[in-house]
Amino acid sequence: MLRTHTCGELTKKDEGKEVVLAGWAHNIRKFGKKAFVDLRDRYGITQLVLDEKLKDIYDSLTKESVLIVSGKVEKRKDINPEMQTGEIEIMANTLVVASKAERLPFEIFNPSVESTEETRLKYRYLDLRRGEMQRMLEFRFRAEMIIRNYFQMKEFVEVETPQLSKPTPEGARDFLIPSRVIKKNFWALPQSPQQYKQLLMVAGIDKYFQIVRCFRDEDLRKDRQYEFTQIDVEMSFVDENDVMALAEGMTSVLYSQLLGIKLDKPFPKITWHDALDKYGSDKPDLRFELSFVDVTTDFEDSGLRIFEAAVKGGGVVKAIFLRELLTRSEIKKLEDVAKTHGFPGVAWVKYDGDELSGSIASKLTDNLKQKFSKKKGTTLIMAGEWLPTVLALGGIRLALGDKFNLKKGLSVLWVTEFPLFEWSETLKSATPMHHPFTSPLKGFEAHLGEKISKEDTLNIPSRAYDIVINGVEIGGGSIRITDHELQEKMLKTLGINKTVAQEKFGMLLDAFKYGVPPHGGIAFGFDRLLQVMLQTDSIRDVIAFPKNKSGRAPMEDAPSKADKEALKELGLRCK
Amino acid sequence: MLRTHTCGELTKKDEGKEVVLAGWAHNIRKFGKKAFVDLRDRYGITQLVLDEKLKDIYDSLTKESVLIVSGKVEKRKDINPEMQTGEIEIMANTLVVASKAERLPFEIFNPSVESTEETRLKYRYLDLRRGEMQRMLEFRFRAEMIIRNYFQMKEFVEVETPQLSKPTPEGARDFLIPSRVIKKNFWALPQSPQQYKQLLMVAGIDKYFQIVRCFRDEDLRKDRQYEFTQIDVEMSFVDENDVMALAEGMTSVLYSQLLGIKLDKPFPKITWHDALDKYGSDKPDLRFELSFVDVTTDFEDSGLRIFEAAVKGGGVVKAIFLRELLTRSEIKKLEDVAKTHGFPGVAWVKYDGDELSGSIASKLTDNLKQKFSKKKGTTLIMAGEWLPTVLALGGIRLALGDKFNLKKGLSVLWVTEFPLFEWSETLKSATPMHHPFTSPLKGFEAHLGEKISKEDTLNIPSRAYDIVINGVEIGGGSIRITDHELQEKMLKTLGINKTVAQEKFGMLLDAFKYGVPPHGGIAFGFDRLLQVMLQTDSIRDVIAFPKNKSGRAPMEDAPSKADKEALKELGLRCK
Repeated sequence: MLRTHTCGELTKKDEGKEVVLAGWAHNIRKFGKKAFVDLRDRYGITQLVLDEKLKDIYDSLTKESVLIVSGKVEKRKDINPEMQTGEIEIMANTLVVASKAERLPFEIFNPSVESTEETRLKYRYLDLRRGEMQRMLEFRFRAEMIIRNYFQMKEFVEVETPQLSKPTPEGARDFLIPSRVIKKNFWALPQSPQQYKQLLMVAGIDKYFQIVRCFRDEDLRKDRQYEFTQIDVEMSFVDENDVMALAEGMTSVLYSQLLGIKLDKPFPKITWHDALDKYGSDKPDLRFELSFVDVTTDFEDSGLRIFEAAVKGGGVVKAIFLRELLTRSEIKKLEDVAKTHGFPGVAWVKYDGDELSGSIASKLTDNLKQKFSKKKGTTLIMAGEWLPTVLALGGIRLALGDKFNLKKGLSVLWVTEFPLFEWSETLKSATPMHHPFTSPLKGFEAHLGEKISKEDTLNIPSRAYDIVINGVEIGGGSIRITDHELQEKMLKTLGINKTVAQEKFGMLLDAFKYGVPPHGGIAFGFDRLLQVMLQTDSIRDVIAFPKNKSGRAPMEDAPSKADKEALKELGLRCK
Repeated sequence: MLRTHTCGELTKKDEGKEVVLAGWAHNIRKFGKKAFVDLRDRYGITQLVLDEKLKDIYDSLTKESVLIVSGKVEKRKDINPEMQTGEIEIMANTLVVASKAERLPFEIFNPSVESTEETRLKYRYLDLRRGEMQRMLEFRFRAEMIIRNYFQMKEFVEVETPQLSKPTPEGARDFLIPSRVIKKNFWALPQSPQQYKQLLMVAGIDKYFQIVRCFRDEDLRKDRQYEFTQIDVEMSFVDENDVMALAEGMTSVLYSQLLGIKLDKPFPKITWHDALDKYGSDKPDLRFELSFVDVTTDFEDSGLRIFEAAVKGGGVVKAIFLRELLTRSEIKKLEDVAKTHGFPGVAWVKYDGDELSGSIASKLTDNLKQKFSKKKGTTLIMAGEWLPTVLALGGIRLALGDKFNLKKGLSVLWVTEFPLFEWSETLKSATPMHHPFTSPLKGFEAHLGEKISKEDTLNIPSRAYDIVINGVEIGGGSIRITDHELQEKMLKTLGINKTVAQEKFGMLLDAFKYGVPPHGGIAFGFDRLLQVMLQTDSIRDVIAFPKNKSGRAPMEDAPSKADKEALKELGLRCK
């Protein structure tokens, strides 16, 4: 080693020792004939004292240069209690500038100086010098180790599945890789190891997990990257409670070991239908309540035309009651939320303890007037077809949560019984909400085998579940269909004939012929989990070398032009 | 759980318990009114006894069907001491066939029945049912956990580097991924995270490791796959001894924890030059000695034309002495080895204790006759230019090792001081043997800066090292160039001008301007390490879902045709 100690370990116990330290010149301060240098490495900062004999060196020293210094540990007069090494300093004897830093492209450690994210990403290796970023990378690694130890203890085997795989028939867009050997043929990067992990169950691996890179060629957003890391899990001879208990164990051990937070188990469960009906979201943020009140019957004969029409058309009237008295401008903002959901606005009634006001106050029946005058506060009301109405009111609920700063503490829960299907306007058909190997809920098997109307699409619950933390979907999974007859019915429901089925899912359907155990699993978005645990703004903050917002890698300057020879070898031409 | 116990845990202590087991029907034997079924899962095999009331089920039962059985644990009369569960059996009460297995495509557990590797790969999920394969996957996972724990203990951080990266300017062929967003541009799958790990050193991560998938679009061989797993390591403020000590620690802990073998540390070291000069290989298998004897001076004036010419031309004469008396047909086989190295054959002298024979025996000077008549045995002699001669004799040495079954025990060693350059006939220039960031050995810096002649190419040693186990290169690394001036000289030596350097290595060269610590590292081929540890025949035996010999994935049927729409979106046309 070119050093005897790191910059984070010397204390007054080491007084008098001759040491060699190495690191970056974090700060350089000159006082008369001396210079003080804060020497930084991953482990801490140690103060160096350079006297006149090193003047030639320190006079031309630049910040962020790499130094190797030998010297003696001395007690400091002015102890710095905030530094690990604040009791000592090094009287430098020799000083070598191993690498001189040129002018930096941005102020690494000074957040007051503006630097765009683009610049920071271009020089990510400099941005990663910040303690905050290094703690993040350490946190990420510790989380991975905790996860792996947890699964090892539970007798799981981590199996590495291929990254050069077959293009998938469903789901998001694949990244394709042209084959050089078999012209006009392509590999695909996996969107998830879904089929491989099910095959591992057929292989009798019994308990599989993997922390694995997955890929989706979809346009990026704040919480999306082309490549992301997934904690992938599959188990045999289980039902949903076994998978959920395992996932709760993993989540709890992460929260307790990394954040010192004890999570109560089992986590609360809410069905998909109830989550939407009460909170207007399939990933409800229950750090605050503000649940919906169903006022459909109240408005059935209210004389208010829009509401009556909604009820007659089979729709609903839903309300949020809020103790606060909202101002007109506050309500204006909520109306904007309603508009993003395709509604013209939101009806509201306000009772200040004395009188009723609001958009529909004057038109209310006496009965309703009485109802809304019981408690001081504002009631926000929306009416229409069930799903769009609850989703819009769900949007308003979240906006209120932000507005009144209600998103405090921690909300961890399961959303269960997701619908097996959703309606595709493009295909004019029900399509799987997750994938065609998701089991229907017990008792609903008989609904399969025939095409499903748009109206009934959402009415067949499945054995699929999501884990939701603070309103963010962190993971999801299901118990899979392994019964041959049920699988055939499922494909029939989806209008997939045998030829197409074989083409699309042949590998798995074939494998299921040779003895498949009942199985199910879950996959966690690891980056998203870290983002929620560390409460960072963007998923890019928890990834060492992320792509930028527009999907480029500014540091590597990629993607980039390929060699003509290479393209020729691949038999490709760019249009 | 759909079971109370696994098939590997019940013993006579459990006698009388009502249990539910699940697994595969490994064997079915019918005796009179009873049937005996060996139920198998990952954890073991338990014998089930099915009586007449279950006759309807067991009569149509097929091997490898998945069963869920409830029953009572009973002591067995005929104890099977070779089975974990050999003391007990289950008197079945209910039996459910959860999945009936069709006729199997090959005999999974019966190695006497022929099945091609191709069939086994197509149905890999069935081949993985074999205990041997499951133990392999468990071994692989345990190895990964031991490695990760080792590095965590040493304060390393595992950092996940991008898989969507920039095409690399050097090395093997990249797999290219067309970008949909930026037409005519490509991502590349990394051949190794070399540049990223060096950037992490610039970032001050200090100690990095990663178990990471890497990719090379090269034609496959027995020990190669398109995608392979690498144990990637980089450290700051170190010299080669630090990196080697760390790698020795990791290797030792793997051998001791997984195989119960204690390795003596430090591992022996041999320079590249000595390895070739004595054993004719840069990855010598030292499970047996058979080192070369230099007989150049003996043949200088021997009167034997070929030998004299070799010596006069600056070449060498090298010999292997063997106590065995080789027959003509044995020597014929060694000549075939010499031919694969471009030599017409091998000279030999045999002394049976009585008289000399062999290809050159009659032409030897008295002096040499005396020399070869000291010990009973065969001497094999080759002459010519140093490198081809030692390589050819190295090939013969390995053939002898196989022939006389000398490859026993374990040989772990370092080959150090690899040449910095090797000669490229294509480029008519010296090119880096590893990569252009490898440091020359101290004291050889002055040789850089000017073009190097073909003759001198191998004469500049570097700070690069390989770890070799049983004659297989398991890993390699180097101390990197971080000195700006030296880097410029290196690029000049390679004939790379500044513009090209910036284009090829700009990211790293730029990063080095802002304070780069001295650093070095190593990368292990993890699959190959496992192959050596488990002594399997092919690298495919230690990978869950490998590609076949011709680079296809028979199970997934990949690569395959891509969707026309997808290609259109990518702006690609196949020629």
